[in-house]
Amino acid sequence: MKPEPIDLHAKLEMIHEHWAPKVVAEMNDYQFKLVKLQGEFVWHQHENTDEVFYVLHGLLEVRFRDRSVFVREGELFVVPKGVEHITRAEDECHVLIIEPRGVINTGAQKGDLTAPNDVWI
Amino acid sequence: MKPEPIDLHAKLEMIHEHWAPKVVAEMNDYQFKLVKLQGEFVWHQHENTDEVFYVLHGLLEVRFRDRSVFVREGELFVVPKGVEHITRAEDECHVLIIEPRGVINTGAQKGDLTAPNDVWI
Repeated sequence: MKPEPIDLHAKLEMIHEHWAPKVVAEMNDYQFKLVKLQGEFVWHQHENTDEVFYVLHGLLEVRFRDRSVFVREGELFVVPKGVEHITRAEDECHVLIIEPRGVINTGAQKGDLTAPNDVWI
Repeated sequence: MKPEPIDLHAKLEMIHEHWAPKVVAEMNDYQFKLVKLQGEFVWHQHENTDEVFYVLHGLLEVRFRDRSVFVREGELFVVPKGVEHITRAEDECHVLIIEPRGVINTGAQKGDLTAPNDVWI
């Protein structure tokens, strides 16, 4: 199959729910996922991997137990492996997530916000 | 060390040469590199890895032996592992490259455009 460019903003228009990452590309065993989020997620960590957030629209708060980081449009942020965090956005925020295939969005804290993996758009 | 958000546009202002990728972040053993490019690169391939280009500004042409792909601002493109390609930009283009640490920009085709690795900004 011949790869084509992926227009992230066009893909975002296909997403109509919050907290449900959709895969748009793969590089080796890593995935690029788009997500729309608003409100507060759940505390969790990823024991085996860093996780990257790139904000395409809005303002993303990444809260740690000891501080908060605000990630603005055009900024990239690396959540270190094993560090507990929660994401939060007052207004709707659009984020590109980059992480290895198979990472569960809520880590081990499975619940209502745990999204199915490998849903492509 | 506590990670901070990385403003890609602010980082781009620190780059004053073409074809010399600068590392701005790491995720596990992968690196995020910013590059400004204009003109034509050299034919090469990366035998062991896919390579991702995300265009932040301008229009990037990725030429393969059998076709050309044009990647626009806001678009992401995955160059498959082992496939010969050459990048080209009529006007200056700003690109975020995502690939494993240690990948040489020119692959095995070392020459004048081979850039040093692990130069952080």
